[in-house]
Amino acid sequence: MKLLKHTTEHIQEVVIDPYGDIKAKFNALAIPGGSLGRLEELATVYTSIRDSVNCTIKHKTIFTMAGDHGVVEEGVSAFPQQVTREMVKNFLSGGAAINVLARHIGAKVIVVDCGVASHLELTGPHFQIRKIGLGTKNMVKGPAMSREDAIHSLEAGIELLEEELKEGLDIIGVGDMGIANTTPSSAILAVLGKLDVDMATGRGTGLDGDALQRKISVIKKAIQVNQPDPNDPIGVLAKVGGYEIGGIAGLCLGAARRRIPIVLDGFISTAGALIAHAIEPKIKGYLIASHISAEKGHKLMLQLLDKIPLLDLNLRLGEGTGAALGINLIEASVKLLNEMATFQEAGVSEPNI
Amino acid sequence: MKLLKHTTEHIQEVVIDPYGDIKAKFNALAIPGGSLGRLEELATVYTSIRDSVNCTIKHKTIFTMAGDHGVVEEGVSAFPQQVTREMVKNFLSGGAAINVLARHIGAKVIVVDCGVASHLELTGPHFQIRKIGLGTKNMVKGPAMSREDAIHSLEAGIELLEEELKEGLDIIGVGDMGIANTTPSSAILAVLGKLDVDMATGRGTGLDGDALQRKISVIKKAIQVNQPDPNDPIGVLAKVGGYEIGGIAGLCLGAARRRIPIVLDGFISTAGALIAHAIEPKIKGYLIASHISAEKGHKLMLQLLDKIPLLDLNLRLGEGTGAALGINLIEASVKLLNEMATFQEAGVSEPNI
Repeated sequence: MKLLKHTTEHIQEVVIDPYGDIKAKFNALAIPGGSLGRLEELATVYTSIRDSVNCTIKHKTIFTMAGDHGVVEEGVSAFPQQVTREMVKNFLSGGAAINVLARHIGAKVIVVDCGVASHLELTGPHFQIRKIGLGTKNMVKGPAMSREDAIHSLEAGIELLEEELKEGLDIIGVGDMGIANTTPSSAILAVLGKLDVDMATGRGTGLDGDALQRKISVIKKAIQVNQPDPNDPIGVLAKVGGYEIGGIAGLCLGAARRRIPIVLDGFISTAGALIAHAIEPKIKGYLIASHISAEKGHKLMLQLLDKIPLLDLNLRLGEGTGAALGINLIEASVKLLNEMATFQEAGVSEPNI
Repeated sequence: MKLLKHTTEHIQEVVIDPYGDIKAKFNALAIPGGSLGRLEELATVYTSIRDSVNCTIKHKTIFTMAGDHGVVEEGVSAFPQQVTREMVKNFLSGGAAINVLARHIGAKVIVVDCGVASHLELTGPHFQIRKIGLGTKNMVKGPAMSREDAIHSLEAGIELLEEELKEGLDIIGVGDMGIANTTPSSAILAVLGKLDVDMATGRGTGLDGDALQRKISVIKKAIQVNQPDPNDPIGVLAKVGGYEIGGIAGLCLGAARRRIPIVLDGFISTAGALIAHAIEPKIKGYLIASHISAEKGHKLMLQLLDKIPLLDLNLRLGEGTGAALGINLIEASVKLLNEMATFQEAGVSEPNI
């Protein structure tokens, strides 16, 4: 609890372009004013977070946070639970979508076992074991985890961030892997957003109509049984959350404390951000939404965080895949700010009007 | 005319995934079916155009086509005409936005003088001079160029494509530079789309309300004076087009003839594609819309071509900047298809349902 408290207390609000020097630098570039659209906005947000108009992006890290969920036994997922560990193995072999996209953008992928339901006999240079438990408990029957474990999961995220900071870190992406984890994410959205469960619940990896209705009933029951209080986000995480979701929330808090921009992926990573935001609203300025997922409810999450996504590609894969594409756009925007010639340098005439 | 005729006659219609093997390859990958959204669609379009499920993207070339416009004397641009040649110099020095983004995505930029209004004493490894004239004539007073020159501009684009093909070529982006060139582009949209000029005309690099009204009047007058026939696209290009727009149209025809995917940039490059499409509608399947520009009218152009843009970042810069970002997404999608492990390879369990 001490690390969590210390971290949240040291998060500063982001002030966008406090000295006007980012806008001045853009206005000097040899382009029509404003013609870079959201790329100018992105570079402005990035450099404001880093508190330096000349900063660059070199060290890019995507955290793919894995965990299992006891609620899987209610039949809420199209895939069996062992897929979580099988996919962790796939991540470590470099054959998953997030590996391909991370190579494409020149980012590191750190795979974290936050609470896979079995002991993994796996190794890898960027594999971290921060196991809080062997999968959460079934939240229909009681809390998914203890309050103490919820805090552990948050602090595991903060610790991961602190460790990675030593290697050099300019931006992070937060992704997930966990069979059934759209179910706790929908529960978190419904509770923190004070929304009907029906509004917050979608098809996940591909449920049909009947299975979707069952999933909605399961989430309603979990909320009824646990009575999570929207004003107690750690309680919400404990009662209807997940280990990897807590880890993602911890990464968000830890990164904000160190002024590292956080690129959200899809539905699950944004659920983690919602928890972090409810713990400390000042993190909002550090969050960048990479894309809007095809999962119903993601739009509502982004609205709660006042975020307009960069991409709308109908993705619903998770792992950090959308975040990777978003990081690439942010890097492009910062390069434009740093590498373009000014009107004066290029000898280009300024507008008549 | 012989090259143009030969090229258009040899363009084949794109058939999407004719043997079903692209879909089969995606279905085998260790992800929930369809979870890659538009990235699956993009890779499917790319590999269908290349007619090979195993193709990769290595050689990426962005053509930045420059030309001047006599209509600039009507006061339709916020910038003076010399900016076209000043920006060509900036492209060759590597300080423009397109240079930064091309480096970011690992693409080559070929800068082409299609008809800048002065003789350029410039050299560069990727600078090509294909000058049709020293800027077009003022289209308010008569045709922008002769029919013969319109054909020359189209054939210059085809020749550029053929030359670049010898270096190796997997995808092209088409961009533009030309002070006042949103004016002919709006005229082309109005004529080929049979639309009111008001609907087709926007603020370009930043005209205010009065200047926009003047621009609309100028375009109306140019159409009235020249009477372009929508069923004669070469005539439309000659009467209300531009040298760089003809060059872009030629690149589109040349690339389609060689089954090279064409990534459109913004308003001007899509105007070129509209001309090419009116000459030979079979090119449609080779066109990929990278983004929707902030320039009014671009949306209408994309609708005429049945294209849904990949990005919506409020860009309105041209040069090929949006195309560069689009190429990067297409490359990511093709890497996913080629590099991801299948369920079988990764030992991942398939869905229950």
